[in-house]
Amino acid sequence: MGDTFFHPVSGMELPRFAGIPTFMRLPHVGLDHPRIGDVQIGLVGLPWDGGTSNRPGARHGPRALRDASTMIRAQHAATGMRPFEVARCADLGDVGPNPVDGPETLDRIAGYFHGLTARGIRPLVAGGDHLCTLGVLRGLAQEGPLGLVHFDSHTDLFAPYFGGKTLTHGNPFRAAVDEGLLDPKRMIQIGIRGTMYDSEDRDFARAHGIRIVTIEEMFDRGIPEVMAEARDIVGDLPTYMSYDIDFVDPSVAPGTGTPEWGGPDAYGAIRVVRECAGLNIVGGDLVEVSPPFDQTGGTAWLGASLMFEMLCVMAGAL
Amino acid sequence: MGDTFFHPVSGMELPRFAGIPTFMRLPHVGLDHPRIGDVQIGLVGLPWDGGTSNRPGARHGPRALRDASTMIRAQHAATGMRPFEVARCADLGDVGPNPVDGPETLDRIAGYFHGLTARGIRPLVAGGDHLCTLGVLRGLAQEGPLGLVHFDSHTDLFAPYFGGKTLTHGNPFRAAVDEGLLDPKRMIQIGIRGTMYDSEDRDFARAHGIRIVTIEEMFDRGIPEVMAEARDIVGDLPTYMSYDIDFVDPSVAPGTGTPEWGGPDAYGAIRVVRECAGLNIVGGDLVEVSPPFDQTGGTAWLGASLMFEMLCVMAGAL
Amino acid sequence: MGDTFFHPVSGMELPRFAGIPTFMRLPHVGLDHPRIGDVQIGLVGLPWDGGTSNRPGARHGPRALRDASTMIRAQHAATGMRPFEVARCADLGDVGPNPVDGPETLDRIAGYFHGLTARGIRPLVAGGDHLCTLGVLRGLAQEGPLGLVHFDSHTDLFAPYFGGKTLTHGNPFRAAVDEGLLDPKRMIQIGIRGTMYDSEDRDFARAHGIRIVTIEEMFDRGIPEVMAEARDIVGDLPTYMSYDIDFVDPSVAPGTGTPEWGGPDAYGAIRVVRECAGLNIVGGDLVEVSPPFDQTGGTAWLGASLMFEMLCVMAGAL
Amino acid sequence: MGDTFFHPVSGMELPRFAGIPTFMRLPHVGLDHPRIGDVQIGLVGLPWDGGTSNRPGARHGPRALRDASTMIRAQHAATGMRPFEVARCADLGDVGPNPVDGPETLDRIAGYFHGLTARGIRPLVAGGDHLCTLGVLRGLAQEGPLGLVHFDSHTDLFAPYFGGKTLTHGNPFRAAVDEGLLDPKRMIQIGIRGTMYDSEDRDFARAHGIRIVTIEEMFDRGIPEVMAEARDIVGDLPTYMSYDIDFVDPSVAPGTGTPEWGGPDAYGAIRVVRECAGLNIVGGDLVEVSPPFDQTGGTAWLGASLMFEMLCVMAGAL
Amino acid sequence: MGDTFFHPVSGMELPRFAGIPTFMRLPHVGLDHPRIGDVQIGLVGLPWDGGTSNRPGARHGPRALRDASTMIRAQHAATGMRPFEVARCADLGDVGPNPVDGPETLDRIAGYFHGLTARGIRPLVAGGDHLCTLGVLRGLAQEGPLGLVHFDSHTDLFAPYFGGKTLTHGNPFRAAVDEGLLDPKRMIQIGIRGTMYDSEDRDFARAHGIRIVTIEEMFDRGIPEVMAEARDIVGDLPTYMSYDIDFVDPSVAPGTGTPEWGGPDAYGAIRVVRECAGLNIVGGDLVEVSPPFDQTGGTAWLGASLMFEMLCVMAGAL
Amino acid sequence: MGDTFFHPVSGMELPRFAGIPTFMRLPHVGLDHPRIGDVQIGLVGLPWDGGTSNRPGARHGPRALRDASTMIRAQHAATGMRPFEVARCADLGDVGPNPVDGPETLDRIAGYFHGLTARGIRPLVAGGDHLCTLGVLRGLAQEGPLGLVHFDSHTDLFAPYFGGKTLTHGNPFRAAVDEGLLDPKRMIQIGIRGTMYDSEDRDFARAHGIRIVTIEEMFDRGIPEVMAEARDIVGDLPTYMSYDIDFVDPSVAPGTGTPEWGGPDAYGAIRVVRECAGLNIVGGDLVEVSPPFDQTGGTAWLGASLMFEMLCVMAGAL
Repeated sequence: MGDTFFHPVSGMELPRFAGIPTFMRLPHVGLDHPRIGDVQIGLVGLPWDGGTSNRPGARHGPRALRDASTMIRAQHAATGMRPFEVARCADLGDVGPNPVDGPETLDRIAGYFHGLTARGIRPLVAGGDHLCTLGVLRGLAQEGPLGLVHFDSHTDLFAPYFGGKTLTHGNPFRAAVDEGLLDPKRMIQIGIRGTMYDSEDRDFARAHGIRIVTIEEMFDRGIPEVMAEARDIVGDLPTYMSYDIDFVDPSVAPGTGTPEWGGPDAYGAIRVVRECAGLNIVGGDLVEVSPPFDQTGGTAWLGASLMFEMLCVMAGAL
Repeated sequence: MGDTFFHPVSGMELPRFAGIPTFMRLPHVGLDHPRIGDVQIGLVGLPWDGGTSNRPGARHGPRALRDASTMIRAQHAATGMRPFEVARCADLGDVGPNPVDGPETLDRIAGYFHGLTARGIRPLVAGGDHLCTLGVLRGLAQEGPLGLVHFDSHTDLFAPYFGGKTLTHGNPFRAAVDEGLLDPKRMIQIGIRGTMYDSEDRDFARAHGIRIVTIEEMFDRGIPEVMAEARDIVGDLPTYMSYDIDFVDPSVAPGTGTPEWGGPDAYGAIRVVRECAGLNIVGGDLVEVSPPFDQTGGTAWLGASLMFEMLCVMAGAL
Repeated sequence: MGDTFFHPVSGMELPRFAGIPTFMRLPHVGLDHPRIGDVQIGLVGLPWDGGTSNRPGARHGPRALRDASTMIRAQHAATGMRPFEVARCADLGDVGPNPVDGPETLDRIAGYFHGLTARGIRPLVAGGDHLCTLGVLRGLAQEGPLGLVHFDSHTDLFAPYFGGKTLTHGNPFRAAVDEGLLDPKRMIQIGIRGTMYDSEDRDFARAHGIRIVTIEEMFDRGIPEVMAEARDIVGDLPTYMSYDIDFVDPSVAPGTGTPEWGGPDAYGAIRVVRECAGLNIVGGDLVEVSPPFDQTGGTAWLGASLMFEMLCVMAGAL
Repeated sequence: MGDTFFHPVSGMELPRFAGIPTFMRLPHVGLDHPRIGDVQIGLVGLPWDGGTSNRPGARHGPRALRDASTMIRAQHAATGMRPFEVARCADLGDVGPNPVDGPETLDRIAGYFHGLTARGIRPLVAGGDHLCTLGVLRGLAQEGPLGLVHFDSHTDLFAPYFGGKTLTHGNPFRAAVDEGLLDPKRMIQIGIRGTMYDSEDRDFARAHGIRIVTIEEMFDRGIPEVMAEARDIVGDLPTYMSYDIDFVDPSVAPGTGTPEWGGPDAYGAIRVVRECAGLNIVGGDLVEVSPPFDQTGGTAWLGASLMFEMLCVMAGAL
Repeated sequence: MGDTFFHPVSGMELPRFAGIPTFMRLPHVGLDHPRIGDVQIGLVGLPWDGGTSNRPGARHGPRALRDASTMIRAQHAATGMRPFEVARCADLGDVGPNPVDGPETLDRIAGYFHGLTARGIRPLVAGGDHLCTLGVLRGLAQEGPLGLVHFDSHTDLFAPYFGGKTLTHGNPFRAAVDEGLLDPKRMIQIGIRGTMYDSEDRDFARAHGIRIVTIEEMFDRGIPEVMAEARDIVGDLPTYMSYDIDFVDPSVAPGTGTPEWGGPDAYGAIRVVRECAGLNIVGGDLVEVSPPFDQTGGTAWLGASLMFEMLCVMAGAL
Repeated sequence: MGDTFFHPVSGMELPRFAGIPTFMRLPHVGLDHPRIGDVQIGLVGLPWDGGTSNRPGARHGPRALRDASTMIRAQHAATGMRPFEVARCADLGDVGPNPVDGPETLDRIAGYFHGLTARGIRPLVAGGDHLCTLGVLRGLAQEGPLGLVHFDSHTDLFAPYFGGKTLTHGNPFRAAVDEGLLDPKRMIQIGIRGTMYDSEDRDFARAHGIRIVTIEEMFDRGIPEVMAEARDIVGDLPTYMSYDIDFVDPSVAPGTGTPEWGGPDAYGAIRVVRECAGLNIVGGDLVEVSPPFDQTGGTAWLGASLMFEMLCVMAGAL
């Protein structure tokens, strides 16, 4: 692809530890930038953790992910894909939250992604906590409900708690189903584990036809078989991919708010995304990286590596 | 004092690293405990950081402060005071927040402290962020506005921002003045420093007669002289003491959300509290300890040490 | 089960990061508490590392495990068991050690567990180093030797060293066999690895009929087969479970004194306990978590998660 | 000043933890940017530590300083100066080093700053190790030798060692004097301490008339008196300010390669810069922040705060 | 073997945390020591990271590896080998680098290992970055090119970059092939992964007949099969083993400069070395441990454990 | 002094991060080394923390202090003294403890220092916890009680606790007085602070004539005046210097077991030792550095720097 404007800065020119850190060293193209109209995939940060009921810090995720992502090079080692030559990608900057007002922030997010969709830009989002995803979906699902491939240790299908009237990062997908943003029949949630208060999330899933794959099932059947089922479930229609970093085992990804032991290792964490190649992914996110709990920066580096895998899938779907 | 029920567990009996960590190894006396009526000073945790506009984590403060406080022994080294023999103290537990609903949490806090005041229990509070203080004051100032001795690097007198309608940890004292909970003429704020957006907080202070002592003035005049002025300003009437750990230099107390360089060392941090001996302190708080940024646990240990100093002042005021 | 006194505080009422941290948010029921007679399973801390020949710090284990354990919810995700409804569980507090006198501390521990056994309370212990287990077994094995399921990277069957007259955390099981507290024919030790001074521990095992499963054998045969053998070996008679956190790979559980590379991942670490369902477990421990070497707190969180797995097994055995 | 293009993004619009981190949230204006001609003070990163003879990592300094600098607001608390309204400031990006070729990198740096000088842009540099300063001076001192105000615990006046033919971060100022870039009679080095191999640096200073103020002298005479002498020494002529973060005590600034105990606290660290107000500072640097040794990020935050102080001095000198 | 001079200090005599830390508690035998002539395997440190293009710190590797290695005991748990009785081993100390002059340092290293080879001492090297290996090979391959078993996530076969004239840790093996130090037909590189700038390294490998096993192939075929192929490739002729710690997954070995996600766990990391038993290994290295990024010290402990595995293979090859 | 055998390795020859870490890069001269008879000042490690009643880890102190001490150069910056030319110094290695048997370890230590005294070697000791000092004094005070200059935040004059029969790091000086090893009239303890159980230590001091200088007195009078009094008290007779690192403020020295806030900064910490120049110091120790709590390594580096100051005083006293 001839348009080198959208190529990342090479480590051959400027060492990877140098320079102002944009996502994957891509150009920063804000909504008012002259080249915004040419962007096909926009990397966007959502620095907000206002839905977090336990340990906070995901608001610092986008910056840490940007920093780590400067380690990414141009070509996928296993597939040979060079995504930045396949798709015009750019760092669109962050959506500004109001850290003390959740409803307002959700509105800002929804409005922003409504605008992106109108421009035909497919978003790859760096959270932020998982409630961010609800805002994204509100902006994205303008032509009917989307399918969902969801990696997580929690279903996030719980009823609102702490009194019942508020949304948290424990219920974005329940709300998204209720609001018609997701098609429950085209939803699959993979990696579910950890202790539970009760089974209400699973009851909701059963009632709506959402497929839950527990971690035990994932390990017993193996990733290839589970992901084949995932591909069947979402089919060829527009699908969103949501990746909560707590899907991964806490030994690999400690930097998150609600870690649950017994998840996949890094190779498995990467492989599930690769197995989505060929799906019609119209947007995706990597959420719940919480830098204050990521003392080595490794969780951010894994998150950035997963974003690159997602980007390759999305570039392949254009 | 004969009532050993209220004495902390001694390190001679059970090493200080052992046992379930209550504040200063005091008995846990919830509101429904049979001995609640005998408590004179209640140590209370406010695990809430919903007003935090920058780095979060103060919600984890009470637990870290409890843990560190088990290092506290029975007697003050410099004054010889044995506060647990002077006053009946207890750990009252935490006020439960709604982590995703600020207004509701402020109501819970205000209600709780209204109840304590009704029982005649003087609170020593472990935050939480500084917006907690507004909730405490709403519960405490039932018989007229209180005086305030306030240690901080920020005035927290700013107008609500992020759109203007919401409270943050940047404006509890402005709200408290506006609501008549504090008497601005009996307020002194000490240690103020750091870069500013503008001077609106200082304009508000000037307009209401609030005394601001910048860090430069504090170092130039010396702590004894500044604290003598503080004692003059608040006089003998009921006074609240609010201690934001970011008053202290970040080399000493890194575990906080908005550190500003150039504050006092630990000796100065302790000394300003000791100089309040004799004041009519009816309640106090130690806020903004953020354990995720306190990698050594030192900030919590300093916070617990300061709470002990405050407790000695409060015990002396009974 | 109707007796809600023994139910943990729910995160729905009080967020999990709030409140005084007891084990799994259970009520604190000391030996002098009116409800002590109703307790079926008692969670007890042994904050002692006086047998540690290498890196210390396990004395801080119980507090870190309590703190982490407040993340545990009410229901097991894979089995659906709700242990706190099956068994009346409580946090009994810590047994106070004498940090500078090992023999005296062992006596205190033995006496304490003798008392628990007399009351019919089954203990789930949080260490402390592995020498704690000897004290527990001295109190527990009052009606004859117990069986043992033991997860560890070391056999802890060595002769006393450093001159020969003292016990360390390298020999509790040798002493327990010698003292008739354990039935060597009903003992299995799983996960053994790491460099050795010599083979004396294995000679002792062979001579007494203790079954050692090295890590190589465990990985070659697989966990299900090895655990089936374990169930055969211990049979239906009363059995103790001892889990040294250094069984787990150091990438997963770095916070321990003598880590050895090449152990199981978190999923395997959890699974070996689950496979004990149905055994007649009359007591268990999770030892050697050393918080000073657990910089992320992850080891404590894994330890607490394993204690929950053990609790479910023990509740099922009532 | 009406030109809001050069104003930093306000935390009122976008929280300070959000957005792509440029120095102090200023616009990124590369050398090919249309507004480059309007820049008065350019903030530049030198991500290079190729002269480091001891602990490396300063190559990561510019990124950490950028990240921390987003905490800076618009106005100086003590003086009220609003530097971004006084001077048109911008983040010019980094000068790309060759991490494995020192001489080439020094040439690149010298060439870059030669170009800046030609454009009339005064640089405020974020290192990198102290050898970077030699490259900067080679570019800057085009119209004769400059004066120097130098804060450090080392004189950096040593002869080249490790065989004698190579430059290191231990001798930039010796080389600069030898090359006629600095006027030794207008040089003052403040804060010198730490063990020494020998006195050759002091012999060189004595021979050339360079003023060395040891830390003992600084504490004995006091900062105001020492800085008055500094102002006398450099006078009104063009002067460079070089600030090695190891000037500050390691308790305050641990994140550096060669810390020496017994330096000033943060208040002193800041104050020495403020006392330079009124000097004709034509360029400055803050070097030797080494993020791998800065576990809390505090050293970077102090470094960014000092850069703001330096910027205020430089803005005042325009 | 009767010569106890070469036996490590036992932890039975002096606890493992005590004493001056030499590699594996072996005697320090410098080149001028009277027993140097008896040494069969020499453990040598190369504290140099001058070829590092990304995150530095490997210069601190040898010291951290020595410290961790004092945890090693006398006997291999799985094979029963007691290497210190099979071979006379010693810590030969470090080769002194010139931290600011790469070519000179490479010369020093080559000269040193030339001397060792002349003495008939087989080296086991602790790096340092991977460019150290080029220096070692220059000293070792005096009688013709060696075979290579190479564990890494990078091929290190790239052309010199940053202008093209300098060597970095990205190209030691390309240079070694070009210089005739390695026989490309007897080279195998295992574990290759991570994003790439382009495929030039793989083109070079293909052109020269170097076998590359990607991480995907390694996991798909399994370690035993891959290592059987490795044994076939290198055959019985003299072979060097080079182990870059970034071969291992970053969750296990975070303390390195260029981590790539998706590598083997610790058990696999160890197993690949064990599978080399029987090969004619005449020298080996463990490189790229970077202590500033190894916050728990775990990477150094794994590195030391791998060095013990390598030592057992080398002792078996004598 | 011509005997270069006893000179440290220079950083000019071998960079300071390289080489096997002995104290200050001195030669390792064990008791059986041919040059032992020439040693005047012996640096000795006591890796034992068996008297620790609170947070352990000081057993790891000597190794961390050795590592940090390799940063020390040849000459004192302020006085110009070159101690390694004034006195023949060597690293004598560690005294091996029995980690699980306190009385035996104390005997080993006493025996070791008895031997050193017989050889006329003056010891500079790196602990270990403060109970080590009792063992040292038992070996040293063979010709009558010594004077003591003691820097600490605790008096360590408490009666044995935890049942009364055992020694801890809370009472070495009480035991030393009781055993006639120290002359209480020639003892001064400086920096005392922190909460207390009771005043029994001060009663003991008063009864025996031991001078206690609280931290308040030290700051009020100033270090020069206090140290002048110290010199008067100990006079010209043989005197021991004992430096507990918790004398220093925890912001400066967090890596210790029982930190107390409000101590001196690093400059003060160093200065008190310098003020001992001229005293007849026959031995000294630096104790209670606990590396597991010293995350940056800064406490060890300060400890090593203080040992260098002590060494200069001791060399001056020869």
